[in-house]
Amino acid sequence: MTRAIKWDVLFFRTGSMTGIYPAPTQLEHHRQQFPALANKAYFNFGGQGTLPQASLAAIQKVYEYIQLHGPFCAGVNTWITEESNKTRLAIASELGAPVESITLTEDVTVGCNIPMWGIDWQAGDHLLLTDCEHPGVIAIAQELARRFNIEVSTCPILETLNQGDPTTVIAQHLRPRTRLVVLSHLLWNTGQVLPVREIVDACRNYSTGSHIIRVLVDAAQSVGSLPLNLTELGADFYAFTGHKWWCGPEGLGGLYIRPDAFDSIRPTFIGWRGIVSDETGKPLGWKLNGQRFEVATSAYPLYAGLRAAIATHQQWGTAQERYEQICQGSEYLWQRLSELESVRCLCISPPQAGLVSFVLTNGRSHQKLVQFLEQKGFMLRTILDPNCVRACVHYFTLREEIDQLVEVIKDSGL
Amino acid sequence: MTRAIKWDVLFFRTGSMTGIYPAPTQLEHHRQQFPALANKAYFNFGGQGTLPQASLAAIQKVYEYIQLHGPFCAGVNTWITEESNKTRLAIASELGAPVESITLTEDVTVGCNIPMWGIDWQAGDHLLLTDCEHPGVIAIAQELARRFNIEVSTCPILETLNQGDPTTVIAQHLRPRTRLVVLSHLLWNTGQVLPVREIVDACRNYSTGSHIIRVLVDAAQSVGSLPLNLTELGADFYAFTGHKWWCGPEGLGGLYIRPDAFDSIRPTFIGWRGIVSDETGKPLGWKLNGQRFEVATSAYPLYAGLRAAIATHQQWGTAQERYEQICQGSEYLWQRLSELESVRCLCISPPQAGLVSFVLTNGRSHQKLVQFLEQKGFMLRTILDPNCVRACVHYFTLREEIDQLVEVIKDSGL
Repeated sequence: MTRAIKWDVLFFRTGSMTGIYPAPTQLEHHRQQFPALANKAYFNFGGQGTLPQASLAAIQKVYEYIQLHGPFCAGVNTWITEESNKTRLAIASELGAPVESITLTEDVTVGCNIPMWGIDWQAGDHLLLTDCEHPGVIAIAQELARRFNIEVSTCPILETLNQGDPTTVIAQHLRPRTRLVVLSHLLWNTGQVLPVREIVDACRNYSTGSHIIRVLVDAAQSVGSLPLNLTELGADFYAFTGHKWWCGPEGLGGLYIRPDAFDSIRPTFIGWRGIVSDETGKPLGWKLNGQRFEVATSAYPLYAGLRAAIATHQQWGTAQERYEQICQGSEYLWQRLSELESVRCLCISPPQAGLVSFVLTNGRSHQKLVQFLEQKGFMLRTILDPNCVRACVHYFTLREEIDQLVEVIKDSGL
Repeated sequence: MTRAIKWDVLFFRTGSMTGIYPAPTQLEHHRQQFPALANKAYFNFGGQGTLPQASLAAIQKVYEYIQLHGPFCAGVNTWITEESNKTRLAIASELGAPVESITLTEDVTVGCNIPMWGIDWQAGDHLLLTDCEHPGVIAIAQELARRFNIEVSTCPILETLNQGDPTTVIAQHLRPRTRLVVLSHLLWNTGQVLPVREIVDACRNYSTGSHIIRVLVDAAQSVGSLPLNLTELGADFYAFTGHKWWCGPEGLGGLYIRPDAFDSIRPTFIGWRGIVSDETGKPLGWKLNGQRFEVATSAYPLYAGLRAAIATHQQWGTAQERYEQICQGSEYLWQRLSELESVRCLCISPPQAGLVSFVLTNGRSHQKLVQFLEQKGFMLRTILDPNCVRACVHYFTLREEIDQLVEVIKDSGL
C-alpha cells in the first residue's frame, strides 16, 4: 500500500456545501490521534473504524493493571465489575438510553441473535426481514424457521432508496402472526436511512391487544454515525458494535433492550454474568438489567478502549455535529463521483449519512477497482447485493482525500 | 497487596516428592516472563492465568499491524483469516485434535452453550449433569428444560472424590431418553479428575442403534493443566478457555467437536463466520469445519496472544512434563496443608492435578481467610459448594511460595 495523499493542501470549500467545514489545522490535529489515517486514505468505516491511539493505550494499560493487581482476585474482580458498569454507562449516555437497557456483547451479530432466539417462537409465527439485511442475520432467520417452524418473509426495501416509502412497504407485509420485524437503521449496502420511529409506530398500530410486534434494529452502521436517542426512537431491540463508526476495538458491541420489551425475551446463550445465585452458587434467576443476556468472561481490556474511542469523538463535537460533518463529506463525495462519466451513485440525492455506494457504468469489475484502489492506498469495499462499490466518509475525512479518491478512480482505467 | 515473598531462597526439595524439581535458576528465569508473578504469590490459575509478557507484546503488535495496513481491507481480512487458522491449528495441535474440529469462542461457557443449544431437543428428552458443574452450565440446562420441555437431572459425583466410582454413578443415571451428559474433566470445586474415556464408553454402551448419548466436557480447568489427546479421549464436545491454565488473554476460548458428532448439532448463535454464501451474499449453508459455530467479529489480536502463551509453556516442557510438575507442586501443597491443625484438604490422597481445595476445621470464615491472604499478596479464592478454599498450583509455582502460603495461613489467626 503506497502513500497516495499529499498533505500540503488540506482544505477545500465548495459553494454547494452547507455549513462551515472545520479549520484544517484543527481537523489535522484531531486526525493525528488515529494512527491508521497516517498512511492511507480510509473509506471503510462501515467495515471497521480506525482505532485512536488513546484506545490502544487504554487497552494496554488495563492489561498491565490486571496483571499487576491480579489477574484473578477480589480486588480485580470488583474493578472489572466497575469497568463494565462504566462502559455500559458511556454507551447508554451516547445512545440516549438508560444504563440498565445495555447488554455488552462480542459484536453486533450476537446482539441480533439475542432477541431473535429470545422470543418464545410458536409454530406458524411470522418474522419479517427487509431485503437489505446482512447475511448473518438472514442465516439466523432461516435457522429459526427450521428450528421452530416459523414463517420468514422478506419485504422489498432496496427499491425504496430513491422512491416510495419504506414504512408503507413494511406495514403492507405485516401479518396477524408477525412477532418480529428485523431491519437496519442505516442500510449497509445502499446507505439509506430507514425511518425507524415511523416503522415502530406502524408496527404498534398493527399490534392488537397482548400481541405486540417487536422491532429489532441492526445498528451496525448507525451507531457512531447517526445522532441517536433510543428512548425516543422507540425500537425494542437495537444491536450495535463499537468497532465500526465508533472506531473502538474489534470484539466489543452491545444490545439495547427497551425497558418495556425486557421481559419479552428469554436468555439463550447463558452464563454466570446473567444469573443470580443462592448462597451455594446455584442459579436462582436472572439479573434484572441488561447483564441478564451477557454470558461469561470477555476481553475486558477492550472496555476501556471503547470508552476512549467514544471520548475521542466527543472531544471533537457532539453526535449531531459529527453527523452533520459526515453528511457534508458524503455529499461532497457523492457530488464529485456523480461528475465521473463511468460512475453512477445508487442514491439520486445526497446520502443521508456516511455511506456512498456507486456502480461502474462501463461494465468494468468493481472488485478490480477496489483492488486497484487498495494498492494505491485507498480503502474501499465491494458489496454483492446490489453489486456496487461502497465508500464511507467519517466526520474527520478530508476533502483532499475525497478529491484524490475521485482522481484515482478517474485514472484507474476502470 | 503487599509483597510477601522473599526471593533469596528459591528451591526446596522434600523427600516425599517423586521426580526432580527443575533447577531453580531455570524456573526463576522462566517465571520472569509472567509480569503478574513478580509482586505476589499466585494460586488462582483456575480463575485466570498469568499472562506472559510475550502475549501482551503479541497482542499489541497485532493492533498496530491492523491499523498500519487497514483496519478493514482485503489485505488485512486475508491476514486475519490466516491468524484464525493458525490459532485453531495451535490449539488443535496442543489438544491432539484435527484442526477442523476446533471452533473459536469467546469463553468456555459459549463453548458449552453451542452443543447444549445445538441438539434438536424433543419434549421428554433427558439431559444429565453432574452435581459439580458450574452455575452457568446449570442455568443453561434449566433454561433448556423450560424451553424444550426436556428433563434435567443431576448425579452425585461430589461424593466420589475419595470413594466410589464416577463412571458407575453416571452409568446408573442414564435413561433411555438421555441425549447429553455434561460433566467437567477436572472438577472446579474439588479438583477431582473424572475418567472421561471410561464415562464416554459407558455412554456408548448404553446407546442403542441410532440413539447416541453425547458427552459434553466442560474443560475450563483441564485444558492447560492435563496432557490431552482429545481424539483418544472420545468426548463428543470439549469446551475450553485460553485464559486459565494456558495463561492466555481473557475473552478467547474454544470448542472441540468430535468429527463424528459434527452433524449431531446445529448452529444456534449464527453469523457470517459460520456460513457459506452465493454470489449475491445470500446464505446457502454452513461451513464444513468448526468455523460453522463461530459468529462474527471477535477480538482478533487475542489470537496471537494465546499462541504466544501456549508457545511459552511449550518452551518449558511438554504437556506431560508440565502436568507432572503441577502434580508435584500440588502434592507438596496438599501435604503441607495437611500438617496444619485447623485445615482439612477435601482430598484424602494427593490431588490428581493443580487444584487443592481445603476447609478450615475451626469454624472460621473461608472468605475472611481469602481476604486476609489477598492483603498479604497471596491470591486464592473461596468455593461455595462445597464450602471451601481453593488454591491452584501451576508448573511454575515455587516451593517457596507454597511454604510461605502455609506459613501465612498458620499465622492468620483464622
